[in-house]
Amino acid sequence: MKNFEKAGTILYNTGFLGNLIGSERTFVDMALESFFNPRSVAIVGASRQKSKVGYEILANMMEAGYGGRIFPVNPKADTIEGLKCFPELESIGDTPDLVIIIVPAKIVPSVMQQCAKVGVKAVIIITAAFREVGKEGRALEEQVIQIAKQAGIRVIGPNCLGLIVPANNLNASFGGDLPAAGAIAYLSQSGALLAAILDMANASDIGFSKLVSIGNKADVDELDLIEAVAADDETKVIAGYLESISDGNAFVRLAEQISHIKPILLMKSGGTQAGAKAASSHTGSLAGSETAYESAFERSGIIRCDSIKQQFDYAQAFANQPLPAGPRVAVVTNAGGPGIMAADAVERKGLTFAKLDGDTVSKLTSRLPPAANLHNPVDVLGDALADRYEFALDVVLDDPDVDVVLVLLTPQAMTESAATAEAIVKVSRRKPTKPVLACFLGAAKVEEGVKVLRLGGVPQYDSPESAVATIDAMVRYVGWLSKPKRVVKLFPVNRRKVENIVERHLRQRILEIGETESKEILEAYGFVTPKGSIATTADQAANIAQQLGYPVVLKIWSPDILHKSDVGGVKIGLNSERQVRDAFDLMIYRIPKKLPDAHILGVLVQEMCRKGKEVILGMNRDPHFGALMMFGMGGVMVEVLKDVSFYLAPLTAQEAKQMLINTKTYRILQGVRGDVGVDIDRISEGLQRLSQLVTEFPQIKEMDINPYVIGPEGTTPIAVDARITLEP
Amino acid sequence: MKNFEKAGTILYNTGFLGNLIGSERTFVDMALESFFNPRSVAIVGASRQKSKVGYEILANMMEAGYGGRIFPVNPKADTIEGLKCFPELESIGDTPDLVIIIVPAKIVPSVMQQCAKVGVKAVIIITAAFREVGKEGRALEEQVIQIAKQAGIRVIGPNCLGLIVPANNLNASFGGDLPAAGAIAYLSQSGALLAAILDMANASDIGFSKLVSIGNKADVDELDLIEAVAADDETKVIAGYLESISDGNAFVRLAEQISHIKPILLMKSGGTQAGAKAASSHTGSLAGSETAYESAFERSGIIRCDSIKQQFDYAQAFANQPLPAGPRVAVVTNAGGPGIMAADAVERKGLTFAKLDGDTVSKLTSRLPPAANLHNPVDVLGDALADRYEFALDVVLDDPDVDVVLVLLTPQAMTESAATAEAIVKVSRRKPTKPVLACFLGAAKVEEGVKVLRLGGVPQYDSPESAVATIDAMVRYVGWLSKPKRVVKLFPVNRRKVENIVERHLRQRILEIGETESKEILEAYGFVTPKGSIATTADQAANIAQQLGYPVVLKIWSPDILHKSDVGGVKIGLNSERQVRDAFDLMIYRIPKKLPDAHILGVLVQEMCRKGKEVILGMNRDPHFGALMMFGMGGVMVEVLKDVSFYLAPLTAQEAKQMLINTKTYRILQGVRGDVGVDIDRISEGLQRLSQLVTEFPQIKEMDINPYVIGPEGTTPIAVDARITLEP
Repeated sequence: MKNFEKAGTILYNTGFLGNLIGSERTFVDMALESFFNPRSVAIVGASRQKSKVGYEILANMMEAGYGGRIFPVNPKADTIEGLKCFPELESIGDTPDLVIIIVPAKIVPSVMQQCAKVGVKAVIIITAAFREVGKEGRALEEQVIQIAKQAGIRVIGPNCLGLIVPANNLNASFGGDLPAAGAIAYLSQSGALLAAILDMANASDIGFSKLVSIGNKADVDELDLIEAVAADDETKVIAGYLESISDGNAFVRLAEQISHIKPILLMKSGGTQAGAKAASSHTGSLAGSETAYESAFERSGIIRCDSIKQQFDYAQAFANQPLPAGPRVAVVTNAGGPGIMAADAVERKGLTFAKLDGDTVSKLTSRLPPAANLHNPVDVLGDALADRYEFALDVVLDDPDVDVVLVLLTPQAMTESAATAEAIVKVSRRKPTKPVLACFLGAAKVEEGVKVLRLGGVPQYDSPESAVATIDAMVRYVGWLSKPKRVVKLFPVNRRKVENIVERHLRQRILEIGETESKEILEAYGFVTPKGSIATTADQAANIAQQLGYPVVLKIWSPDILHKSDVGGVKIGLNSERQVRDAFDLMIYRIPKKLPDAHILGVLVQEMCRKGKEVILGMNRDPHFGALMMFGMGGVMVEVLKDVSFYLAPLTAQEAKQMLINTKTYRILQGVRGDVGVDIDRISEGLQRLSQLVTEFPQIKEMDINPYVIGPEGTTPIAVDARITLEP
Repeated sequence: MKNFEKAGTILYNTGFLGNLIGSERTFVDMALESFFNPRSVAIVGASRQKSKVGYEILANMMEAGYGGRIFPVNPKADTIEGLKCFPELESIGDTPDLVIIIVPAKIVPSVMQQCAKVGVKAVIIITAAFREVGKEGRALEEQVIQIAKQAGIRVIGPNCLGLIVPANNLNASFGGDLPAAGAIAYLSQSGALLAAILDMANASDIGFSKLVSIGNKADVDELDLIEAVAADDETKVIAGYLESISDGNAFVRLAEQISHIKPILLMKSGGTQAGAKAASSHTGSLAGSETAYESAFERSGIIRCDSIKQQFDYAQAFANQPLPAGPRVAVVTNAGGPGIMAADAVERKGLTFAKLDGDTVSKLTSRLPPAANLHNPVDVLGDALADRYEFALDVVLDDPDVDVVLVLLTPQAMTESAATAEAIVKVSRRKPTKPVLACFLGAAKVEEGVKVLRLGGVPQYDSPESAVATIDAMVRYVGWLSKPKRVVKLFPVNRRKVENIVERHLRQRILEIGETESKEILEAYGFVTPKGSIATTADQAANIAQQLGYPVVLKIWSPDILHKSDVGGVKIGLNSERQVRDAFDLMIYRIPKKLPDAHILGVLVQEMCRKGKEVILGMNRDPHFGALMMFGMGGVMVEVLKDVSFYLAPLTAQEAKQMLINTKTYRILQGVRGDVGVDIDRISEGLQRLSQLVTEFPQIKEMDINPYVIGPEGTTPIAVDARITLEP
């Protein structure tokens, strides 16, 4: 996704992936044709030796029953496994749609040259020992990509496991046997993990539309591939394992669009310090901030998974069942214990344990035995056969107060696991608008039933807890989908003014902006700062204080003193002329003694904001995702509770408000114990204005307004102090 | 555990389970002999019909290869499955060690009479339709237990699945096939769940020492059985699924002792509102408070599990591996991705990702390929064979800075799953002092290896995350084990005084204790309350205020007014004689108008505690576990953050202090931003005194001291106000 800038803009404006694909078809088209559905595949480095990857890929291609032509390329063999072998690409006499390269790293550039010569457009480089082994490898990788760019070749890899498309019988990988065809696309930055996933999936009938090992992402990256599988009709769910993201901003913008069409389930590792260190020594890439990732995923609707198991738990449901209309969960079970566990899990996740409608209960009464529990969880009892399950599920699914049904089964003496599974599949198909999930507990005794469920599209879980976690993920996704369209408000501001200040500082290589100019920047973006003026004599100071009204604050005024408090250059809460005069004289007398070289321009006399609560508005620029906005409660709360929240800029009004709500002590802002609350919309506006400022000025690396003093509704918040750091 | 009172006391005093078992052998002995290892078993209600439970249990007994004698009892059959059948118990002519009853509920009492007559001591009642179906069933159950008690018979059930002892080839259940013998004892309150567990365990070679379905717990309860398996040599780990606990206090006291000898892993459901409701409609028992359960489990060292899967994840490690000496985890892997996942999981759990010793790194360098990562996670690379794993694991296990090693494997082209597993088992056995866990990712390709690991005692996990969660459980258990012995300090108090007040109130059926007497109670237990006296005239009020020093508080004084604030009967912050006189006169004038019937004795003039921070000390009596102490931060913190913590009484000094530390804003007590901290030990002492009071007076149902005003070190905290409610 190297030329995303343009695509991103189009996307952002139209809001339709269709348009994007219409306007920027290059990689998506190539992926769908040459990579996912090639008419012919050349394997450069194909081998006769069974222990070699060059043999395994060829064998996998043949075993999978690939329908197109296969050209093994190896100067040392005439035939491999009965196929005619070519000494080099040129000798094929035809241009293969896809070339798989397995030769040693040093030879890869020359093979790429051949690809260019023959007119190949799609290449997968399996070979390792590139960027991941250090400087030399990195140079080699750059050389390869250079050739590719010049020739218009797109490259997956190097250092990858290959590509699998079950529906096309294409197994261009050394990952394992061809899995079943299905609706899940899987992209993995770890080849070894993909092999394990393939093995697990094959053991439990999980089907895939595409499996791609993305390797070093030297050319084609996760974003290209997400875009391609988003456009792929066979893919209903996009899942992936990532250790790093190549272009955070582009990623967020595209993922946000795609999430509206297909759910994206990601497992992202390397989020902790220990994990980041391990990732960095493994891939040589820098892990981004975990907070920024969280925020990016939330914004773009990506469903984050904590483990591979969880990812497949979720993927099964998203691929096979409709989305629930709401959070109300009903349970049908043949045993009390698991029913209680499910109820616990529903409440712990913040979902709703459905209260069944009166009609539903009457209907259940009519055919269930007297000892059955007719309320949620509906207990059809230990002797329930398939027909009783079918009846109960049917009735409960019809309940207007139920959004999703979880069917639990434990293998008891009379239990019909397979027949019950068939009944569940039947009812689920008959009522395709509400999701049905199942949890058959056990192993051998429920094996047949589990297979029936899986093949019938009813996702099966190994515990009530994991089924409920999946329902929760679906409900959260529906919540994200139903959010209003993001509209970022643009405030009228004096951009030119800030431009001048920022450019002047950068020219002079001054990276921290001083108080006067910080204030000017804030005012240019509509913030109100405390009134005040510079005094050069005690008389002046007293006069200014008189005009402002007491109490006032005095601050030493010098371009050379950034940390005023440290040198006794700040006095707050001055309540009388005498206090002002004393403070002025003491500063003027003492500070030059401490800092003889500081050029002192005077003392700032400023109104003091006493009323209202103090909060902090801030921004940090994340290396991957750009401006990450911060909101924090002031005072002791920040220090003791770290009561802050984050979100990526640019902020909408809703997102800014959500940042406030996400703090633990939000209620303090609303007012507790008779205390009048503060004007919450004005804080949210402050965050949006700051978001606009840092979005329009990417030169600002870090910034915070602290304290931002905010009073009751209708009052004007004051940006008392700001710290702005630029990036050269 | 009906006669636990005595046992509990003995335990508590000696601190050794051995002593308990020595002095109270009745049930433990019977369990180990008649229930777990009977020489003969009678099956009353044995049936020839294959669909009946009475047939299934007999068949299971025979299939398991039980070595003792089996007596089917059924008046309608001569033989069943080739065994001679008896018309009734008496006709056997011998007293069976164990009787299993499967006849319809109404007939159970008469069978119990026969048991009594024949001299049977151990009975399992499989039959359902007792307490769980309502009033009639409850009466029937009571009748059965009545007979049992008179005859000295101990009963497991009714409404249960039975009992399994693999090592003795005893399968007295209709739960499923006999599992492998092992070191895990499993007790389940849900029969259906036990059947599912059995099925899962049989599919993955998990072995058990005992499996017991505890049913309605009409006689033998979870505590009896925990005690029995604690004394059982074959059991190394006690695991169980519970929906309710019969005797909370006894449970905590015994579990605390047993946890020092064997780990107890419990899954407790019904903790949420929805879960409790489901549990109550299922079992008819009342779920206790979740907080009390948490606290009880923490106190007694019980390892709580969130799911059955997690329980077996944990049990495998506890049953087969030594405990880690500390939290430092090292990882050996053949793939980067899973290594990063493990590092993430370690940090998220708060464990330490080990930094390998220099020697270890040098040793690894000597034999690993140059591309291998020699630091944690140690990456032996994708082409690692078993010998490379063996070498790396051996070296890493020797590192003095490593407490536990997790070995990860993904199935790659050259991977030797089974041979690697053998190598791991070998090294683990060679170095039996440090725990080794494994996570072989995949399915068919690692199946053999997984089997080798399981049989070799190296626990195997399906994800790095679940392996790390298990390590975390082990480290937490070690932390609990290393806690100092609990010593509850007894303060010298005036118990007689409180006794008088409490008894007088109860005699008069007054359940809320008024301010004067609450104060007397507090003072009797060493709390300091604010100084003050009752004034009946404004002059007196002014005099008292003068003596106390301003500011003061005025409170209306009447036995008939409990909520003084509601009627304007409290005025705080009075700073002068004039304010005191005004407040006095207004109260005396206005309150009788509002409450003409209230008998007003005067106005309390009290010193006002301004300095220091306000906290809350409290107690609620949980129906299962008794006095649950509460500590809360005062003011806005409690209201907004619900910043409170709980622990079961009686509190040790360490536990009281931990309650403070467990609040989110503990640092505020320590002092932040130059603010002087408060005397933390005095708060802890207050909690211990309150704990002693409510322990010595179980008549106190609820109590709190709010606010408890606490100043800097060396100052005396003041118990300003208290609320005490008695239980009739």
